[in-house]
Amino acid sequence: MLQYALLHLFGYKLTLDDLKNFRQVDSITPGHPEAHDTPGIEVTTGPLGQGFANAVGLAIAQAHLGAVFNKPGYELFNNHTFVFFGDGCAMEGVASEAASTAGHLQLGNLIAIYDDNHISIDGDTKCAFTEDVLKRFEAYGWHTQHVEDGDHDLDGIEAAIQKAKEVTDKPSVIKLTTTIGFGSKLQGTGGVHGNPLKADDAAQVKTKFGFNPEESFVVPQEVYDQYHKHAAEGAAADQAWNELFKKYQGEHKDLGADLARRLAKKLPEGWEKKLPVYKPTDAAVASRKLSEKVLEDIHDVIPELLSGSADLTGSNNTRWKKAIDFQPPSLGIGEWSGRYLRYGVREHAMGAIMNGLAAYGGLIPAGGTFLNFVSYAAGAVRLSALSHQRVIWVATHDSIGLGEDGPTHQPIETLAHFRALPNVQVWRPADGNETSAAYYNALTATGTPSILALTRQNLPQLENSTIENAIKGGYVAVEAEDAGLTIVSTGSEVGIAIEAVKVLKDQYGITTRVVSLPCWEVFDAQPKEYQLKVFPDGIPTLSVEVMSTLGWSKYSHEQFGLNRFGASGPYKEVYKKFEFTPEGIAKRGKATVDFYQGLKPRSPVNRAFQQLI
Amino acid sequence: MLQYALLHLFGYKLTLDDLKNFRQVDSITPGHPEAHDTPGIEVTTGPLGQGFANAVGLAIAQAHLGAVFNKPGYELFNNHTFVFFGDGCAMEGVASEAASTAGHLQLGNLIAIYDDNHISIDGDTKCAFTEDVLKRFEAYGWHTQHVEDGDHDLDGIEAAIQKAKEVTDKPSVIKLTTTIGFGSKLQGTGGVHGNPLKADDAAQVKTKFGFNPEESFVVPQEVYDQYHKHAAEGAAADQAWNELFKKYQGEHKDLGADLARRLAKKLPEGWEKKLPVYKPTDAAVASRKLSEKVLEDIHDVIPELLSGSADLTGSNNTRWKKAIDFQPPSLGIGEWSGRYLRYGVREHAMGAIMNGLAAYGGLIPAGGTFLNFVSYAAGAVRLSALSHQRVIWVATHDSIGLGEDGPTHQPIETLAHFRALPNVQVWRPADGNETSAAYYNALTATGTPSILALTRQNLPQLENSTIENAIKGGYVAVEAEDAGLTIVSTGSEVGIAIEAVKVLKDQYGITTRVVSLPCWEVFDAQPKEYQLKVFPDGIPTLSVEVMSTLGWSKYSHEQFGLNRFGASGPYKEVYKKFEFTPEGIAKRGKATVDFYQGLKPRSPVNRAFQQLI
Repeated sequence: MLQYALLHLFGYKLTLDDLKNFRQVDSITPGHPEAHDTPGIEVTTGPLGQGFANAVGLAIAQAHLGAVFNKPGYELFNNHTFVFFGDGCAMEGVASEAASTAGHLQLGNLIAIYDDNHISIDGDTKCAFTEDVLKRFEAYGWHTQHVEDGDHDLDGIEAAIQKAKEVTDKPSVIKLTTTIGFGSKLQGTGGVHGNPLKADDAAQVKTKFGFNPEESFVVPQEVYDQYHKHAAEGAAADQAWNELFKKYQGEHKDLGADLARRLAKKLPEGWEKKLPVYKPTDAAVASRKLSEKVLEDIHDVIPELLSGSADLTGSNNTRWKKAIDFQPPSLGIGEWSGRYLRYGVREHAMGAIMNGLAAYGGLIPAGGTFLNFVSYAAGAVRLSALSHQRVIWVATHDSIGLGEDGPTHQPIETLAHFRALPNVQVWRPADGNETSAAYYNALTATGTPSILALTRQNLPQLENSTIENAIKGGYVAVEAEDAGLTIVSTGSEVGIAIEAVKVLKDQYGITTRVVSLPCWEVFDAQPKEYQLKVFPDGIPTLSVEVMSTLGWSKYSHEQFGLNRFGASGPYKEVYKKFEFTPEGIAKRGKATVDFYQGLKPRSPVNRAFQQLI
Repeated sequence: MLQYALLHLFGYKLTLDDLKNFRQVDSITPGHPEAHDTPGIEVTTGPLGQGFANAVGLAIAQAHLGAVFNKPGYELFNNHTFVFFGDGCAMEGVASEAASTAGHLQLGNLIAIYDDNHISIDGDTKCAFTEDVLKRFEAYGWHTQHVEDGDHDLDGIEAAIQKAKEVTDKPSVIKLTTTIGFGSKLQGTGGVHGNPLKADDAAQVKTKFGFNPEESFVVPQEVYDQYHKHAAEGAAADQAWNELFKKYQGEHKDLGADLARRLAKKLPEGWEKKLPVYKPTDAAVASRKLSEKVLEDIHDVIPELLSGSADLTGSNNTRWKKAIDFQPPSLGIGEWSGRYLRYGVREHAMGAIMNGLAAYGGLIPAGGTFLNFVSYAAGAVRLSALSHQRVIWVATHDSIGLGEDGPTHQPIETLAHFRALPNVQVWRPADGNETSAAYYNALTATGTPSILALTRQNLPQLENSTIENAIKGGYVAVEAEDAGLTIVSTGSEVGIAIEAVKVLKDQYGITTRVVSLPCWEVFDAQPKEYQLKVFPDGIPTLSVEVMSTLGWSKYSHEQFGLNRFGASGPYKEVYKKFEFTPEGIAKRGKATVDFYQGLKPRSPVNRAFQQLI
């Protein structure tokens, strides 16, 4: 509510009626601020720790874009990033990870203000949180200050912020010791955390601060005047920036055009011609390597692409050969202009930092980890989706096919999890062209995050796989007249399913079609007519994917999957153990055909009614 | 591999052949150690940060059980908990959260050894991790020591451990500065992180340390002798403990019997009679309050139940009235014997700490947060499931029914996520008796974690809901002769679905049955015959649940759900917006019946083949 009220005072498109509609259906003032829906909200927060980590992303974006675009006389990117956080955020691991990252990166323009009010929802922080927060931030490499009377000492706060701005070689945190609900009868207690003040308490607070206790939702004109004066300064700064940028575009034509394009979220003309294309005769390659080839081929033409990994660079294959690390130059191992981020083993912070990078504008973040460990970042992925951020997860080692690492690392539930999350493209490409298509969609979906599930093991290049086919999210990989069975599959299992076609014919006399369905979300957006071509009526359909079958009945009548944990071993043996072989698939194809003998089942995409979207 | 090798040397049931079968299918030596399958492995690790946080749980268990059971002359629980962690774990947020918790709790018997080898998978930690780890731990309230030459200074290591044991009022961390792959040609590089040494390198290492370079998998007898001597000391200590415990059972009969029962994972005789039972005429109550009533009624009879919350005690209703906090007595706000844990806003650590508590034995941990934020702990929940730990998540605010907090807090994908995870009971009870049944199953499933999805809003007590019905995971809530439609639903939507029965009859002339399916995992374990009674052949079935429809086609032909983010507002209005009303359900029921006109669809539980389990 404080954010909304301030935005109103500063003249953003938030009316008093919007404030009155706080937490009402279809208002622009939901219970927690959402960047996509409310003017002036920069990132979507509420889930604790996310905003703090977003700020680290925003500060990285500023440092990077400044290094790339600033020129003498043109300080285009020199803003400070401010973030307010409380005890709840300070306890969350995602914020710890992000704070450690920010300290390492020496993000001098990041200023965090810690509202040290000793109260969390369970009451006094003494019950769970007695660490020395400033000392911890010092350990991370931050500059620290303490304003002891955060309730009254406005000069002290201003001086601390000024000092923080002067410290340019490390991020700054200012601890403000404050009283929660300052002025309320319940001040200093958890009773003012999430509940409105009672009428008599609200009245006495208003009286105490010089307002008419009888009035509500009234802003004195002098308050508006004061805030609008600041807003006018902001508007003037905005205009000055726009003029500077215009001049810049004249003097630095290429950079200026590039920046304008990037801020408009447009990709360079013809960039997609750089996407690698494969023939069926090309060698079998792991899709993590196919992904590496995409990054290698497109990084030059898409300079806004910032890659990185949560300490699995050599496994995720996220780094192009000539990549320069994004690092403070003083470390001697990279530059502010570097486009490769070493996130450390901090998946959750990586996700939330990528949200900040995307929210800043002019950048497309891509981050690597094992698919199984995208789950560590579930909180951040959720907010990518809700806040419409174009964030790309390079999620390698996507199944039991990772082999030796075993069940602790083998995803079973992960694709179901993210397929159930609205506004996420979950891609599981089967070969080179599908991997290129996955990147095509991930890069062009300006308001949607993508998770690319990629293999460790080699995959053959498929016969009917083309970028044009795969960008539809699903297509017929093997067509057949008078087919008795459709197999639908994704990623590494498509090739095995195609091998099963011959077994089904030879052993059981069944003619089989195969559908490759690398991305459900994108396929669902195709015209119904196309969907029915891919999944025609009258043919029983079997899904094949080496993980949880949950959700697959959306596209199939019967499901072959793995509703148990995997096994550690060489991947071919693991696949064999669970019968993900041409024979194992054919056996279940036969069972499916038998089960539907004499029936002509409707296409699974035919439904009784439309879902709410 | 180090853990396996040591277990072999210490005489655990791990043979040389088991070591040779490292990372082979069906071996007991998978890529990362799994507690359930391998003798001597105490917790399942591999995913970084989990083991560290597990150790905090183990140390809490020791402190608590010591306070409850230790008597003069009977130091039953006085062990130290040791944990080794490296730079990767130190970077993970879950470990930071757990370290902060351990410092707050002053866990004096916890000793962590930090293998400071400067190397993570991306190479030198300089690229991402330059914080001062010991200073950070000091800030958390830990005792810190540094052994500078961890490669050679065995005396220093021993002295540091001794010192750490002497510090009893705080946890201890010992930083060992070491060389990764010490002795290898690749020592000090990431090349020895996960790859076996090359033959020539292995040979020179063996030579360097006085072994025959020609031999592999050979343990000199003097090595066995040395380790077996230590093992014998351990066995003697074990025997001494057993004898002490036997004596204790004589002298402290009640406590002794209680402890023996708890260690055997048996619940007290007749405990289940304490579970609250409801009549249909009883008042409507939110299931989070129903859960609170269960905890209030059973906590006395199940003393091994340790409840807690990630700073949402008043919202999760996880604390019984007379609960005492588990706190270091010096803080003056609790006792070591306290059974209520203040986890702070640290969901991931809470999950991993609960795994440690469960692994220790003699305890059943239950932890509260909003369902949406169980996702923050996904990494830990996954390991609860894989390692068969009886851990209970009290996951309140389970849907858009939480209302005002809005989309950032409203689960859409969460149930699909955890339903797809093997070996988890996901419960979404519809009323009081179902809530009691959920607890019955969660408490008696000794090798399975449970997530109880509970409402913020009130729910009516249903007509046919009984504990006996609900413990089967699903049952017929409204039966009808010659029904034209089955509606299957969970939790807060069951009551609305039952209201829809009348609308369907009155408006559309459709006779409708209603099935309540609070737990898929448990229902799936029922005999097929029972499942077919609940979902008979020939009747079209519609599922109704206010979240992702993903997976529901397992039990239904058509699905009504919410495949988009929710909305902020009073919950009844949010339900209305998305048509989760008797009329909205009836409309879709009618569409379902029309769609299947003239067809007699098979029961969704009839499948073409069995899934692998």
